[in-house]
Amino acid sequence: MSDTVGSALLGAGGIGSGVIAALEAGAARYAARVGRPLELRHVLVRDTLRPRRGVASALITGDLDVVLGDPDTRIVIELMGGEDPARSYIERCLRAGRHVVTANKEVMAKAGAELLQIANDHGVRLLYEASVGGGIPIIAPLSRDLLANEITAVTAIINGTTNYMLTAMAQNGADYDDVLAEAQDLGYAEPDPTADVEGIDASFKIAVLCGLAFNVAVSPDQVAREGISGLTALDIAYAEQLGYVIKLLARARLVEGEVEATVQPTLVPVEEPLAKVDGVLNAVQIEGDLVGRVVFEGPGAGPGPTSSSVLADVLDVAQDVVAGRAPLAFVPRRTVRVRPPEEHRSRYYLRITVQDRPGVLARIAQALGDAQISIASFIQYEVEGAEGTAELVFTTHHANGGALQRAIGVIESMDVVQEIGNVLPMAGAETPR
Amino acid sequence: MSDTVGSALLGAGGIGSGVIAALEAGAARYAARVGRPLELRHVLVRDTLRPRRGVASALITGDLDVVLGDPDTRIVIELMGGEDPARSYIERCLRAGRHVVTANKEVMAKAGAELLQIANDHGVRLLYEASVGGGIPIIAPLSRDLLANEITAVTAIINGTTNYMLTAMAQNGADYDDVLAEAQDLGYAEPDPTADVEGIDASFKIAVLCGLAFNVAVSPDQVAREGISGLTALDIAYAEQLGYVIKLLARARLVEGEVEATVQPTLVPVEEPLAKVDGVLNAVQIEGDLVGRVVFEGPGAGPGPTSSSVLADVLDVAQDVVAGRAPLAFVPRRTVRVRPPEEHRSRYYLRITVQDRPGVLARIAQALGDAQISIASFIQYEVEGAEGTAELVFTTHHANGGALQRAIGVIESMDVVQEIGNVLPMAGAETPR
Repeated sequence: MSDTVGSALLGAGGIGSGVIAALEAGAARYAARVGRPLELRHVLVRDTLRPRRGVASALITGDLDVVLGDPDTRIVIELMGGEDPARSYIERCLRAGRHVVTANKEVMAKAGAELLQIANDHGVRLLYEASVGGGIPIIAPLSRDLLANEITAVTAIINGTTNYMLTAMAQNGADYDDVLAEAQDLGYAEPDPTADVEGIDASFKIAVLCGLAFNVAVSPDQVAREGISGLTALDIAYAEQLGYVIKLLARARLVEGEVEATVQPTLVPVEEPLAKVDGVLNAVQIEGDLVGRVVFEGPGAGPGPTSSSVLADVLDVAQDVVAGRAPLAFVPRRTVRVRPPEEHRSRYYLRITVQDRPGVLARIAQALGDAQISIASFIQYEVEGAEGTAELVFTTHHANGGALQRAIGVIESMDVVQEIGNVLPMAGAETPR
Repeated sequence: MSDTVGSALLGAGGIGSGVIAALEAGAARYAARVGRPLELRHVLVRDTLRPRRGVASALITGDLDVVLGDPDTRIVIELMGGEDPARSYIERCLRAGRHVVTANKEVMAKAGAELLQIANDHGVRLLYEASVGGGIPIIAPLSRDLLANEITAVTAIINGTTNYMLTAMAQNGADYDDVLAEAQDLGYAEPDPTADVEGIDASFKIAVLCGLAFNVAVSPDQVAREGISGLTALDIAYAEQLGYVIKLLARARLVEGEVEATVQPTLVPVEEPLAKVDGVLNAVQIEGDLVGRVVFEGPGAGPGPTSSSVLADVLDVAQDVVAGRAPLAFVPRRTVRVRPPEEHRSRYYLRITVQDRPGVLARIAQALGDAQISIASFIQYEVEGAEGTAELVFTTHHANGGALQRAIGVIESMDVVQEIGNVLPMAGAETPR
């Protein structure tokens, strides 16, 4: 038996370098906690010739078989990101009897249930705290601390880029394109921002959370997804006047045994905890039958926070390795129906640009009423510099998503309607009816 | 081997009844998760003759030996509260090879290190998630999810009664006595509110958190403690004008290898997450070298939230019982010096009532300057209905607690000074200097 707990790192980018640095800085503490030193034995990279600061060249390899051929490597830390080849590498490691710690939200969202089952079948663990919410403990609390609860809802701000942009839009009245350019300058948004601004990243994370919160398998394509690129400064200003902040919320709910999972710009009442989460911070709110509501808030990205979560998983499994503790059995995920957006019930915000003529409001109100959609509030705004044009802003009581879409179709076809500006769901406490 | 996992409950008050109800309601889910049904085999109460709703009378006993004489009772859930006899009962259970789950902050604060060592020596676990923060997962995140961090500070609102009262004082401008009476009417405060309003309850909890965050043993008497009974509506109004909210903060910091632990009414900048935690909610903010800052918020008391934490511990240990997993070794707590308040460094708020005469300000400023205390802001208020009297409100830069006390002594002895209204620490981001 080795006198260390050996590990290998797959990927040595920004996060990988952070993990290597943290492993070195905390070595003595970690050894005391685990009972043996942790030893990094291999670092797998694509380009083995490029020198890497802080990584002994003897550790570098480009070949997973080198890692798997070393019986003293018990834990593999996957930080490559992306689906391919990370997913197949994780699977090979598990099948070779290695514990795996990953920060890979895409792989866990698309193949988590399958990989967890493979880990179970090979007597090893697959841990993934860093895949959602960066440094915020969220996966372990759901899998352990809140396990006694029937979880009914998870509501989260889990993409720092978009939250930074929405916060800037709300605080400066700036428009989408300007804050995107600024976020790119600051390094908060990628040159191609699609994965963040279109909610793809958040859809991976909420799919992972569905597995944990409800023990159901939800694939990212089953998440009803809408990004923030269609938002305007106007929507944000109108929301503020109504007492709301617009956040890109990732939400999952268990309703009558079925799941609703969405990533959408959503109006959040200013007094709600999530409305106060600004900038690149992330937050996850969980509702359970016993606990009521708990909120976890913290930094959702970056080498330090991500290393915190990766190494928590590494220490956990290393303690088990030293103690010879077998993993707990994996409880397979249930498959339940995922409701399409037409079946969701929500309050909604509608912004409609119309010709300012008598009878317009009556016709729109009639179309909403015909679809059984009840108006909660209504404001009409003059549009600056566009005489004869008005903006109508409605909020509705709880309504059926499909009925709303049909009503929007009717309204859109009216000759007096210039444009459906935006249709957004609203979060909040009003009881569904 | 039993085909259930047997447990016993010590204490069947409000929390105990909540746990019994939750065990029944979740029985099928818990059995699926653990792999065997959980079976409640004994309920120990003081008065065995009193009928208890929801508890089969065959389970009732007044004798711990009945519990310990039953080999199928593997987990004992202690919910009696208070130090005596809970502490000795827990110890007896551990020595008899029973896992113990407790919500007892007083016992864990006063004897946690010792009891955890006894558990370790007898191959059983002692879990105590419910002892701090009610339903908020906080102990498991500190023991697991943030384990890779060097934790530098824990800052918490962990007493719902006082937070309710301070919120009411801030929102209504009400005085201490009025909100206390109201809180008692609503059942948020006990008929004898001492343990809450004097910060005793919070001092137990921060002592427990010191053990987890820094792995050091801190006893509750080492916590510098001040309650909220000396606060006035004036202090809260002045704080608001300065951009602060007064909260009863429990704080622990690791400074140069020594611990500072306090429970004090503290001025918190309005933009800080903890300033926004209102009513009976609790919140715990943790700072670590890797993660930066994370905040956990939720209900800090009540049968539901407490049951959520108690049963999380029960499920955790029941899974180990079924899997035959041995507990991890307990890493004994270090003993480090706990700094007395004279050595703390903080910013401070001072309210001083003086005769409104020329030269008074100069004399007080001189006394502060002589003690190397640098004034950050100063406001003079007229006192309504008391001509010739003025209130001086100072905030200081970071200062030494002992130096401040000496300066206060000098100021108090001045003939022009009528009263030292209040001296409170200030939390916030200003760098110590």
